[in-house]
Amino acid sequence: MLLELYDCEPEAINSLDVVKASMVEAAKRAQATIVDVVFHEFSPVGISGVVVIAESHLAIHTWPEHRYAAVDVFSCGDILQPQIAADYLVEQLGAARASVVELQRGVLLHAPHTPVAVDG
Amino acid sequence: MLLELYDCEPEAINSLDVVKASMVEAAKRAQATIVDVVFHEFSPVGISGVVVIAESHLAIHTWPEHRYAAVDVFSCGDILQPQIAADYLVEQLGAARASVVELQRGVLLHAPHTPVAVDG
Repeated sequence: MLLELYDCEPEAINSLDVVKASMVEAAKRAQATIVDVVFHEFSPVGISGVVVIAESHLAIHTWPEHRYAAVDVFSCGDILQPQIAADYLVEQLGAARASVVELQRGVLLHAPHTPVAVDG
Repeated sequence: MLLELYDCEPEAINSLDVVKASMVEAAKRAQATIVDVVFHEFSPVGISGVVVIAESHLAIHTWPEHRYAAVDVFSCGDILQPQIAADYLVEQLGAARASVVELQRGVLLHAPHTPVAVDG
């Protein structure tokens, strides 16, 4: 799921604490199991961060000068509820406009190929 | 850029070392400035990882049991060369089939909104 957040609160999306807390809480609300959290503050403005989850990841990049943030929610399986994460982020980051695109990955997986056994 | 890698070498995409080294080298070849590297091995199989770069991020999730890996290369600006990263990963992970989709983000950024000043 690709989420575009426009007309965000610039103070919110330029705050490492706000962005990180919002992403972690969004992951929890989406029922994700958090594995690792990595966030960075860029100079002069902007935050990038990734929440690695057992079901895959949530990533964010913010451009406070454009009041814009791009969020990716990558998940596998039916357990995760990405829409809940999206709604929460729209609210927390004060986005006046948002667009969501959902994309299926691995769509060619069931095309002919040679299956293999992997030791696990 | 969303990259789908099919019919990969299962040993390669189940190796934390191979996946991590391939992603880091792909980022370097794409002229990215690496900020942080986070990789995890899942049980029984599968690797997830993110290379956070100044220009945004590269993420990978692998399913060795399906010989499939999903890679996202998120970049801003014209400096990064994601196609070079993609070609390198196809080669290193032994993907017999691959598909690439490029998506523009923030396409509504130039729609009317109120610009703001942000202290940096």
